[in-house]
Amino acid sequence: MRALKARLPNESFVYLGDTARLPYGTKSADTVTRYAVQAAAALMTHDIKLLVVACNTASAAAVPTLQHSLTVPVIGVIEPGAEAAVAAVPEGPIAVIATEGTVRGGAYVRAIQAVSPQMPVVQQACPLFVALAEEGLTSGPIAQAVAHRYLDPLLSTMPAPRGLVLGCTHFPVLKAVIAACAPDVVLIDSAETTAAAVEKILIEQGLLNLDGPGVSHFLATDAPGRFAHLGEIFLGEPIDPGAVTLVDL
Amino acid sequence: MRALKARLPNESFVYLGDTARLPYGTKSADTVTRYAVQAAAALMTHDIKLLVVACNTASAAAVPTLQHSLTVPVIGVIEPGAEAAVAAVPEGPIAVIATEGTVRGGAYVRAIQAVSPQMPVVQQACPLFVALAEEGLTSGPIAQAVAHRYLDPLLSTMPAPRGLVLGCTHFPVLKAVIAACAPDVVLIDSAETTAAAVEKILIEQGLLNLDGPGVSHFLATDAPGRFAHLGEIFLGEPIDPGAVTLVDL
Repeated sequence: MRALKARLPNESFVYLGDTARLPYGTKSADTVTRYAVQAAAALMTHDIKLLVVACNTASAAAVPTLQHSLTVPVIGVIEPGAEAAVAAVPEGPIAVIATEGTVRGGAYVRAIQAVSPQMPVVQQACPLFVALAEEGLTSGPIAQAVAHRYLDPLLSTMPAPRGLVLGCTHFPVLKAVIAACAPDVVLIDSAETTAAAVEKILIEQGLLNLDGPGVSHFLATDAPGRFAHLGEIFLGEPIDPGAVTLVDL
Repeated sequence: MRALKARLPNESFVYLGDTARLPYGTKSADTVTRYAVQAAAALMTHDIKLLVVACNTASAAAVPTLQHSLTVPVIGVIEPGAEAAVAAVPEGPIAVIATEGTVRGGAYVRAIQAVSPQMPVVQQACPLFVALAEEGLTSGPIAQAVAHRYLDPLLSTMPAPRGLVLGCTHFPVLKAVIAACAPDVVLIDSAETTAAAVEKILIEQGLLNLDGPGVSHFLATDAPGRFAHLGEIFLGEPIDPGAVTLVDL
């Protein structure tokens, strides 16, 4: 959403955080798909013109189902991330860090090899990164120790990965700690390429807003105050707790 | 459940893990209560004779509601834990570590002071402990660093706490790491006192099984394989993934 707002300042956004049932990364693909379908239905009542599945786990599990059932374009973050990775390190190899669910499903491996069929891809699930980001513990010795635990074995595979995909929307807030463990590796974040993909579709379909500025609405399934507080870490700007609406899926 | 099985080997157990929606510790009391009521309804269909709310967060939020609506005795883990704490360190002070939800609601403070009205109680939410336990990362430098982060400030309050309540069912698997940070402090776990409270009610109401052995059934709301794997860490014995039934709440 931060990247989308920066690139598309005239657009209005409705953001839904399923705070009652997060994290998605440890759940099965079936459950994640069911929850994503419920979340999409709630967003459709707000007359959205396009849906971004701004969660890697939900993108990996649910995008085909959502594209099949919704009447608006649906964009996940996996394909844009895969394209960004191949563009950044065309010779590879590429390493991917993500949630358990995303790693288990292999969506990044398939998406990267759809762009570059011979590309070597290695993966590592990093569940504690989600907990660290949720607690705002994004620097210091604990975050560093967790990063080394996950990244040292991954980045010492041979041939050594030259690109590292941050395959969970929580991970960019840990970018500094991750970069310190991966000094010669390009970090790849799907946010910019996803925003570019959204802009392209809006232009192609004549849906781009030319008048601005857009406004943002926030929906959360639990604890709007906590959502606003944590959301600021990710969005990089204040969120008024009074502007967060509690919804039941 | 481990303590209950050890004390009541003739009893049969039905254990429900709400794996689709865990963790409860970061959710609001309203949402936790709603989920607990749904879980209790599913368990009632198995003809249970008594319900143990074996989660501190759900005990803190939902036990009065469940006691009011169910036809079987309902036992939470907060009161047994509070009684164990006052018995262990009658002069206090008592420190409590728990989830955000349990700390915010103040249930342990009230329960301890119901037993010992002048008892000083200090609290600390330890959300990363839940993530560490869920990942099985219960020893080593990361677990130690997280424990020091939470416990050093808590245990240096004056007068110094003499007892430390492990106020989340995930924390006993971290007991060794916690004990290393709290060398002169008695660690209090509600498992034994809860099991004793269950036995007392079964005897009083003539419900105790005299013939055994009992059998255990497991229900999970998502990912039975992952439930079985993690459940073994807590139960201390193997769980057959095939014996875990997927249920929808």
